[in-house]
Amino acid sequence: MANHYTVLAGGTGAAKFLRGLTAVLPPEEVHVIVNVGDDTEMWGLHISPDVDTILYALSGRLDAERGWGLRNETFRCLEAIKPLGMPSWFQLGDADLATHLTRTELLRGGLTLGDVTERLALLFGVQAKVLPASNDRVRTKIDTPEGLISFQEFFVRDRWQPDVRSVIYSGAAEARAPISVVSSIREAKAIFIAPSNPITSIGPILAVPAIRDALRCTRADIIAISPIIGTAPVSGPAAKLMEACGYEVSPAGVVRCYKDFLDDVIIHETDAALAASIRYDTLGVHVTDILMPDIENARRLAEFALGVNG
Amino acid sequence: MANHYTVLAGGTGAAKFLRGLTAVLPPEEVHVIVNVGDDTEMWGLHISPDVDTILYALSGRLDAERGWGLRNETFRCLEAIKPLGMPSWFQLGDADLATHLTRTELLRGGLTLGDVTERLALLFGVQAKVLPASNDRVRTKIDTPEGLISFQEFFVRDRWQPDVRSVIYSGAAEARAPISVVSSIREAKAIFIAPSNPITSIGPILAVPAIRDALRCTRADIIAISPIIGTAPVSGPAAKLMEACGYEVSPAGVVRCYKDFLDDVIIHETDAALAASIRYDTLGVHVTDILMPDIENARRLAEFALGVNG
Repeated sequence: MANHYTVLAGGTGAAKFLRGLTAVLPPEEVHVIVNVGDDTEMWGLHISPDVDTILYALSGRLDAERGWGLRNETFRCLEAIKPLGMPSWFQLGDADLATHLTRTELLRGGLTLGDVTERLALLFGVQAKVLPASNDRVRTKIDTPEGLISFQEFFVRDRWQPDVRSVIYSGAAEARAPISVVSSIREAKAIFIAPSNPITSIGPILAVPAIRDALRCTRADIIAISPIIGTAPVSGPAAKLMEACGYEVSPAGVVRCYKDFLDDVIIHETDAALAASIRYDTLGVHVTDILMPDIENARRLAEFALGVNG
Repeated sequence: MANHYTVLAGGTGAAKFLRGLTAVLPPEEVHVIVNVGDDTEMWGLHISPDVDTILYALSGRLDAERGWGLRNETFRCLEAIKPLGMPSWFQLGDADLATHLTRTELLRGGLTLGDVTERLALLFGVQAKVLPASNDRVRTKIDTPEGLISFQEFFVRDRWQPDVRSVIYSGAAEARAPISVVSSIREAKAIFIAPSNPITSIGPILAVPAIRDALRCTRADIIAISPIIGTAPVSGPAAKLMEACGYEVSPAGVVRCYKDFLDDVIIHETDAALAASIRYDTLGVHVTDILMPDIENARRLAEFALGVNG
């Protein structure tokens, strides 16, 4: 019998929603399928930014102000490595490095990213099931006038300034989904799409064929929380990326990203007037305050989302 | 024309002597051939403890009290990695990690250990020429009743407590010496053997056939500074290791380690009475205060050593 809820997740926005969801549900009933398109190699280490954001958030150690990395972090290694000619635009903290060193060493030892994530979750005391979308290499590439760059180069190094011509999910078409991911989708009580960037957080998950297929086939209700309010994202570069991919920057545009499998969408209360225009087919449109400035708001939104399913 | 002095070096004792020698000579006239038998892999990183001790000492950043690592170091990553199940007995500091990450990444990119060391020396502002004894893999193994262990396991993890049956320089017989190392020996004005452990600091250097051959053939005077006073080493496990290898623990035992190429030995003033017993063949025995509690004593010893050659 299904006794879990599954969340498709990127980083910051998903972390907030998951903090709420694991506060109102037994955490072990929450599965999280996490984007790996942001993964990168830095200083020879395998970095999984979204997986780490979720693990840190669910273990209560995320630096909530920055939205990434660990609280009370220091950057002694970063300071020392700058003059050695190594890239220093991706800020790896000293305690955070322990995670990357361990992950890299375990991957080199033959474990999959899923195995490593399961082990890290256990060590961090995370009771939710955190599942990287794929153990295969999927990398989001941004096509800019200066050429293809990785998502982290676009997002962190270039502060999402370059023009975007298109977005490519390199490796996704050949990537397999772990059985645990597919069965988490198939057997969920309900599936939530976190308020994450539809193009670079959720998009790389959906680009794995077995995952999109599973979403289309599952009997679970699939409920998206819009990361867009009005015509602007709550945070980050979603607008620029959605435009480049031909989507309207609006809750309606978000729905279009997911239209082949979406059952319900939750939009912000100030967008209530838009509800009629995006209520097509059998889609349910639900209106509430979707901002999560603190854990109380996150709990409330999680309860609202569970009510949509109920 | 030869215008350099060459020093065979391990870690702590050699670092002190080199601080003195580079204070009395133009540092660029000092070549250092450094032991790589202590090198190890930790957390997937290539660690070269003796090379780093020399680089840190010559850039004025060595933690002189500990005798290893950087001054004002922090250990945030180490603290974070302990609960993740990674070995934590080898203390890697946060700023020190920058060196290991950079070295490992450059080695992975195809550079030799010598190339990497040259680059690090440049970045650290070290003007002496620091030359790892070999770019090939040489590893000192300690044969104990519980089996073969690496030098770092013996020295750091097990605090040199295990019984030593023998010492093996794994890989040394096949290891090549870089041309820069051989010509540094051939063309030196004089060669100093630093007051380092003869078995595990100098021994792995001498175990590279081309290096021992070059030492036997060079016309340069070869002068050892004894790391032993009376019947005890100034520091570290030299006594236990010399005994296990069949050498008397005394300045005479040190001379025996080097007897096929040694011209002069400098022993401590309290060992003056021994001078007669170790003055055989054409060996010159020189007596002075060989302790280096501070830079002034290190300068004085360096000047004395240069006088032996002069």
